[in-house]
Amino acid sequence: MSARKPRVTVLGGGTWGTTVASIAARRTDTLLWARDPRIAEAVNRTHQNPRYLAGFDLAQGLRATTDLVGAVERADVLIAGVPAQYLRAVLERSVDHVRPFIPIVSLVKGLEQGSRKRMTEVIGEVLPGNPAGVLSGPNIAREVVQGYSAAATLAMPDHHSAQMLQGVVNTSRYRVYTSEDVVGVEIAGALKNVFALAVGFGDGLGAGDNTRAMVITRSLHELTRLGVALGGRAETFAGLAGMGDLLVTCISPHSRNRYVGFELGRGRPLEEILASMNQVAEGVRTTAAVMKLAAERGIDMPIAREVDAVLNHRQPVEKTYRGLLRATPGHEVYGEGW
Amino acid sequence: MSARKPRVTVLGGGTWGTTVASIAARRTDTLLWARDPRIAEAVNRTHQNPRYLAGFDLAQGLRATTDLVGAVERADVLIAGVPAQYLRAVLERSVDHVRPFIPIVSLVKGLEQGSRKRMTEVIGEVLPGNPAGVLSGPNIAREVVQGYSAAATLAMPDHHSAQMLQGVVNTSRYRVYTSEDVVGVEIAGALKNVFALAVGFGDGLGAGDNTRAMVITRSLHELTRLGVALGGRAETFAGLAGMGDLLVTCISPHSRNRYVGFELGRGRPLEEILASMNQVAEGVRTTAAVMKLAAERGIDMPIAREVDAVLNHRQPVEKTYRGLLRATPGHEVYGEGW
Repeated sequence: MSARKPRVTVLGGGTWGTTVASIAARRTDTLLWARDPRIAEAVNRTHQNPRYLAGFDLAQGLRATTDLVGAVERADVLIAGVPAQYLRAVLERSVDHVRPFIPIVSLVKGLEQGSRKRMTEVIGEVLPGNPAGVLSGPNIAREVVQGYSAAATLAMPDHHSAQMLQGVVNTSRYRVYTSEDVVGVEIAGALKNVFALAVGFGDGLGAGDNTRAMVITRSLHELTRLGVALGGRAETFAGLAGMGDLLVTCISPHSRNRYVGFELGRGRPLEEILASMNQVAEGVRTTAAVMKLAAERGIDMPIAREVDAVLNHRQPVEKTYRGLLRATPGHEVYGEGW
Repeated sequence: MSARKPRVTVLGGGTWGTTVASIAARRTDTLLWARDPRIAEAVNRTHQNPRYLAGFDLAQGLRATTDLVGAVERADVLIAGVPAQYLRAVLERSVDHVRPFIPIVSLVKGLEQGSRKRMTEVIGEVLPGNPAGVLSGPNIAREVVQGYSAAATLAMPDHHSAQMLQGVVNTSRYRVYTSEDVVGVEIAGALKNVFALAVGFGDGLGAGDNTRAMVITRSLHELTRLGVALGGRAETFAGLAGMGDLLVTCISPHSRNRYVGFELGRGRPLEEILASMNQVAEGVRTTAAVMKLAAERGIDMPIAREVDAVLNHRQPVEKTYRGLLRATPGHEVYGEGW
């Protein structure tokens, strides 16, 4: 890194994009691009994002804009926090203005619908000359903004740029570990929501703590098996972006996907639950994509299959755990099935 | 296994020994040896263990005795559920009566004080002719007795005997996976309590869900590092006896070690907390042993070190998390430190 501090632009004024922008703004010159002019204006005037983080103070130095071209042109580092289904369109509008060679870091947990591509694959297709990586971990935004300690993994294709970028987002309260396993970190973030739904089912049905620990542990086993088949490294799934994020998503009362599973477990219809929420529960979309990826690779995913059966094939949620309990377990590491 | 079903004897009428005996009694002829005649008598007369599992019904077929020699002589399988500090003495009293070649399965989570030996090492010293293994997982006894689903790992030195023994303890509600990694399963069970104390500190100090997920994830990393150095396999620590048991111990309101950590985090003195409890919190004893094992192997264990500083060197608990937050993170998998 040169003596001049890098200028950071964060794309996306949602909950997490705003939070990461506020962290970076404490370290270096940071600009937040938001589509909604009310958000940009509020950030500049009140240092708050009233729509997604009402009541929480952001870094004083953070500025915001609705000018995508200007925001992209200035950036030495681009951080992408727009929803999975919009990232490609936003990048395509930026393509002639992104500086060559600058790193692009995805914050997005999800797969592109239809193509089932990871976000760094999308970035690689639109901006093939820029190294693309991902920042992911157990990071409930409201806790990070409030200054509670948290940690995440920052994966870049080469370790040197991961270390350089660590200096942009690491603080004593937001601990950023480095990695080169972009695929593993990204897959873990996209898949965990499916398993948060499964844990939610159990909680809604009144399962105990042993059952929850069993389902989370076997979920990580299942997630790791698919993740390794897709090119991720087993150690990554045992780390912050894998186990850590799965844990917080399965346990936190603020987890939207666990909430959907919990309400299904209590017997509410899916349509009614989704209609009552003002934010997307990504797992509902991701489940079908995960089943297809698993089928392509010949990976058996018994827990994801039960979630898919409930969400997409009208299986009653009470049948889910019964189905899982029928099979006799095999070898813990090498066995087939769950 | 021959056509005759194996006769099982469980040594130890505590919470978990009684629970496993009740599971086995549904599958095969099972006898529980308890030192306390009131427990043996109550099990035989009322099918309950009023001292350790008051109010919970055990299997009707379970019988109990205080006659150690008779209980041991009849056994085709011995399951050991006595506290870590008493196992050697109980086995030494049994040594002339244990049938040759029969498998011995430890349920005990802890190391022998002084020698810092694992329980299967103790069994191997007293009964070198009998294969020794271990059953361990996220198993809060009261939930298992009540019939909530749970799972565990049964590790034996060879996979064939693990599969044979699986038939003795596996039910549709208590799922027993098999493994050959005796050392890994045993180390995981002995070490997790140290980290439950660390998570308890955070909860008592008012940490958030991100922080908890971070500490649990990095605890598993640290536990795995020592466990692999001691001869366990990395996959085991990602499984039920590792991650699964760590999870339930760090999260359940019934976890004694988490409770001790929580109360320390709230500012109560250790002596007062321990005096108020009627059961042992193994982690308090294990921590110093873990620090010695780590020092012998040259493994850095920053989280365990902070727990040790609080328990054994009068460090104020508020300093614990501050100490951890000072260091800049390294590579997530290969980095030194926490």
